[in-house]
Amino acid sequence: MTSSLVIWTLDWVPEGPRGFVRDLRLRWACEEAGIPYTVRTVPFDDRATNHLAQQPFGQVPFLSDGNLQMFESGAGLLHLARRSDTLMPRDAAGEAATTQWLIAALNSVEMVTVPWWFLRISGQKDNSLEGWVRSRLDHVERVLGERQWLAADRFTVADLLMADVLRIPDVREFGNRPATEEYVARLTDRPAFRKARGDQLAQFEAADRVRSKQ
Amino acid sequence: MTSSLVIWTLDWVPEGPRGFVRDLRLRWACEEAGIPYTVRTVPFDDRATNHLAQQPFGQVPFLSDGNLQMFESGAGLLHLARRSDTLMPRDAAGEAATTQWLIAALNSVEMVTVPWWFLRISGQKDNSLEGWVRSRLDHVERVLGERQWLAADRFTVADLLMADVLRIPDVREFGNRPATEEYVARLTDRPAFRKARGDQLAQFEAADRVRSKQ
Repeated sequence: MTSSLVIWTLDWVPEGPRGFVRDLRLRWACEEAGIPYTVRTVPFDDRATNHLAQQPFGQVPFLSDGNLQMFESGAGLLHLARRSDTLMPRDAAGEAATTQWLIAALNSVEMVTVPWWFLRISGQKDNSLEGWVRSRLDHVERVLGERQWLAADRFTVADLLMADVLRIPDVREFGNRPATEEYVARLTDRPAFRKARGDQLAQFEAADRVRSKQ
Repeated sequence: MTSSLVIWTLDWVPEGPRGFVRDLRLRWACEEAGIPYTVRTVPFDDRATNHLAQQPFGQVPFLSDGNLQMFESGAGLLHLARRSDTLMPRDAAGEAATTQWLIAALNSVEMVTVPWWFLRISGQKDNSLEGWVRSRLDHVERVLGERQWLAADRFTVADLLMADVLRIPDVREFGNRPATEEYVARLTDRPAFRKARGDQLAQFEAADRVRSKQ
């Protein structure tokens, strides 16, 4: 079966980001929804400039769906959610709740955790973002202590994205947050996540073998 | 005329954030689209805890539209864009382009500029986010040097949000980026932006007078 949906990612990455490159978000969503897809790649080398026409910040992933092209994993998830009600309910209230929590994962949580993590791996002392991260994670913990799913009392693409944001090891080690930990463990134990992650790891391992022959 | 759309913001803020509180994004979108709306407020005092039921991170804005409630300004903008094709074209390619650039404003630009700005006002020396900000703004400058609008060759809610992210004074002063500067000046000269900003400033000035009598 050929699929019109193509997820584009890098042909290789170093060990560190493996299992975390954001094509995983789109793979995971397709696996949950049963949307057939193929994965194609752009070169890791010169990645900052070689696919700017497809992704103007030089990042991955981007997707194509027939004639449609899109970058930004968050936008890709919203696109997939419009294709499948496994990812987002079809009623107005359910759509609103899913959308707000998807955006919250990107703009209220990841907007703080990723720069904090970046400062941390850069060796910046006196990380001024730490209090802000703590506050945001505390709010998430309170919400997850009250319910199993972020939106519409069911799994949605908002949970997929929030779990992907929260599963970063440094973020998980940030403090004792049992509801968040249970949530991340539960979401990342889903067969669709394990398939998506396994496929990403396998792709980069296969690329290692190609590169070692060059 | 009574409107079902209500934008919620704080009843007062100090001088610094005036003209930048994010209810402005929703006011601006409503003004562009001709969607009638009313503005209601929650107390500034104890804002961290007093409206968590409406906005789980204790922030503003949030909106209500009939029975629907939503937080996250980005999600509110997508909701308004579904109501009016002034904000987003109705064809699949136009919707995809608008959505990807709206998410890019939040997750590729603001995710870097806001933490960078936060470190800057916190007095953090040796701001490790600076190179990252420069790279993202350079990419935006290249895109805006090639075209007037981000998506679909016309004004969309993606321009509204990107301009709001880029108009932060510290970001504008970051470097010599003529296309970005022209873009921000052009977008913030739109009557709908000036009306939205003027109304926000007037609201907080009126609140000053109430507070000074207490």
